[in-house]
Amino acid sequence: MTTVLDTAVLDERLAAAKDASRALARATTAEKDAALAQIAQTLREHVPAIVAANEQDLAAGRASGLSDGLLDRLRLDAVRIDALAQAVLELVALPDPVGELVQGRRLPNGLRIEQQRVPLGVVGAIYEARPNVTVDIAALALKSGNAAVLRGGTAAEHTNGVLVDLLRSALEAAGLPGAAIATVDDFGRAGAQHLMRARDYVDVLIPRGSAGLIQAVVAESTVPVIETGAGVVHMFLDASAREDWSVDLVHNSKTQRPSVCNALETVLVHRDAAARLLPSVIGRLEASGVVVRGDARVRELRPDLPEATDEDFATEHMALELSIAVVDDLDGALAHIRRYSTKHTESIITEEVASAERFLAEVDAAAVMVNASTRFTDGGEFGFGAEVGISTQKLHSRGPMGLPELTSTKWIVRGSGHARG
Amino acid sequence: MTTVLDTAVLDERLAAAKDASRALARATTAEKDAALAQIAQTLREHVPAIVAANEQDLAAGRASGLSDGLLDRLRLDAVRIDALAQAVLELVALPDPVGELVQGRRLPNGLRIEQQRVPLGVVGAIYEARPNVTVDIAALALKSGNAAVLRGGTAAEHTNGVLVDLLRSALEAAGLPGAAIATVDDFGRAGAQHLMRARDYVDVLIPRGSAGLIQAVVAESTVPVIETGAGVVHMFLDASAREDWSVDLVHNSKTQRPSVCNALETVLVHRDAAARLLPSVIGRLEASGVVVRGDARVRELRPDLPEATDEDFATEHMALELSIAVVDDLDGALAHIRRYSTKHTESIITEEVASAERFLAEVDAAAVMVNASTRFTDGGEFGFGAEVGISTQKLHSRGPMGLPELTSTKWIVRGSGHARG
Repeated sequence: MTTVLDTAVLDERLAAAKDASRALARATTAEKDAALAQIAQTLREHVPAIVAANEQDLAAGRASGLSDGLLDRLRLDAVRIDALAQAVLELVALPDPVGELVQGRRLPNGLRIEQQRVPLGVVGAIYEARPNVTVDIAALALKSGNAAVLRGGTAAEHTNGVLVDLLRSALEAAGLPGAAIATVDDFGRAGAQHLMRARDYVDVLIPRGSAGLIQAVVAESTVPVIETGAGVVHMFLDASAREDWSVDLVHNSKTQRPSVCNALETVLVHRDAAARLLPSVIGRLEASGVVVRGDARVRELRPDLPEATDEDFATEHMALELSIAVVDDLDGALAHIRRYSTKHTESIITEEVASAERFLAEVDAAAVMVNASTRFTDGGEFGFGAEVGISTQKLHSRGPMGLPELTSTKWIVRGSGHARG
Repeated sequence: MTTVLDTAVLDERLAAAKDASRALARATTAEKDAALAQIAQTLREHVPAIVAANEQDLAAGRASGLSDGLLDRLRLDAVRIDALAQAVLELVALPDPVGELVQGRRLPNGLRIEQQRVPLGVVGAIYEARPNVTVDIAALALKSGNAAVLRGGTAAEHTNGVLVDLLRSALEAAGLPGAAIATVDDFGRAGAQHLMRARDYVDVLIPRGSAGLIQAVVAESTVPVIETGAGVVHMFLDASAREDWSVDLVHNSKTQRPSVCNALETVLVHRDAAARLLPSVIGRLEASGVVVRGDARVRELRPDLPEATDEDFATEHMALELSIAVVDDLDGALAHIRRYSTKHTESIITEEVASAERFLAEVDAAAVMVNASTRFTDGGEFGFGAEVGISTQKLHSRGPMGLPELTSTKWIVRGSGHARG
């Protein structure tokens, strides 16, 4: 790995990706689908090479003291590689967003205008120690007609290096330019920094990983960024909340998959329902090994619980930990959510229409729910077939992003000598 | 004017705008329309106060040597104020984008999901010496349920100060919070810089003005930016181009309103058509006082023309100046456009379907046209009723932006005890 930045070499690679993006934009759905099938086949044919490179990264990770969780995310074995290849194949069945007519009409003067979906061009991705994202983003970009430039982090660099080589050779075998998939990992951190400023070559940057990584990219990047992920997710148990739903949905939202962004972090409970609901809600959580913390009013009911601090309420634990606060009413819940929410997903459990409708209208988040588990904010659950990530920003796309969110539009205007009067 | 930044005071104002944005998000269409009518009435009732403040700015501008063009943009007289008020009233008739159901369905498990249009929240605007933009942006933001924070520049600060006071009092008179319209002009340049970093309070920033201003905002802002405007716009006269259309559409695109972003800057002509088309195309331009520059091959036909330099081809003149280059073929035209285009609007004049379709498919711009004047890239012409600007970026919105482009969406999920399996 060289960490001295040779800007000319890097720009040449980015320019090649930009050139290749034009070929991808013109590629037919059949050509792109053939390339996806080729990628899946190539991955399956090179399991030993991928695993060998991955073992180098794992060994380095163990030596540098990576946690078991990070090592697990870093690991690619035969089963996981097969699942990755399968996920690539599943993109073949999805509709190609490129060329879709979003709207169109004939103007009073006879001019015909159409808004057509087109690829973004070059999609950049910055992520950490998750080599599966390399294949994932490259395949999603390909299906949506985009080139991809990847920065996968030092911890996974051997694995990513092999994967990018395989992806490029698969593209070439399918008659598309290999330069459409590139990595800047060999330029280290300086490469990532250059990528964040490469407005001439990169059309959008998607950071995937920790809140710290995402914030760093947002602060440093002049390339437009799509923020994904961070989720300090709340569920409010209203005075009228059914006990069975409260117990089930808090439990499901927290424990069904605690390490993901739509998992629940904080329960807010109406003071009139606290004594009725909390014993069974907490009991069910504790039976599944969840560490429950409470504010002062929760601890009046359960003095043995550890105290939930301000920091707890602001933290995305991504683990079997959960904080609970008692609020005076819906306004108190809305105020707490305004203060701590990362605007990902918020849910209310209630029997009252007025509470439900106010919650849905006033909570500012990508997804707001009534009587449902927060785990449903998901591209797969929403029927998108593939998920690029879950956007927590308001521009371009909000909530689960599918293939259409990796496109832009352009206006096609057809006249016959039309001049403006 | 204080130019020392009191961050606490400024943050308080931004926080008040954010709070007010929640009231605007909840306001009904009728309430917002009443406020728009009140704004129009208030402006018309206070013409003398606005004109007096404007005269202070004009006097300062003359003293500091502003050009006649800038002084004209700065000027608000009774006629212009009336037109501004009229434009505000015209927003009343437009559909309210907020609450629109973008899509919705029932999932296989019975969960009902709906994607609803919601306001962005707080819209920031940074612009220069155009006090009309103050009213324009505030009214567009109001109709789309957003608060607005404005930085209108030192040259217009007296005018903008009076306008913002009037806008706020009109909002209050209509029962909406005045804090929903705010200025940071009293904090000078430091206020603008703070605004560009105020991610906690501002949801989107729209720079309007010179290419230099827009690039500075893009480079400095951590708030998401919508780029508007810059247009180095081309028209390609293909070998088969009709002479009458070539003459008319080049002339219309350049001269119908030369100071705007969709006006033509460069004509590219196929070498096989240069001798046939250029004499009449250039003759018509010159008859309207356009200064025409040519590359070497144009000057073989018209040696008296000044030379079009690389810099000319890269410049948005916004004046009666135009550059012409001869290209070998469609590929040559596409290469020139790739190199110099700001991706705003590009048009081809041709009789050949194959050329037209290749041009439409391969040119990367917000609007691509066949046999039509580039002046048609316009929210009014496209039937949007109001125009926020013309986006030249690919995320969120591309091309003319109407009221819906000042909104985001949120997912509403309604269940009955749904847990994820």
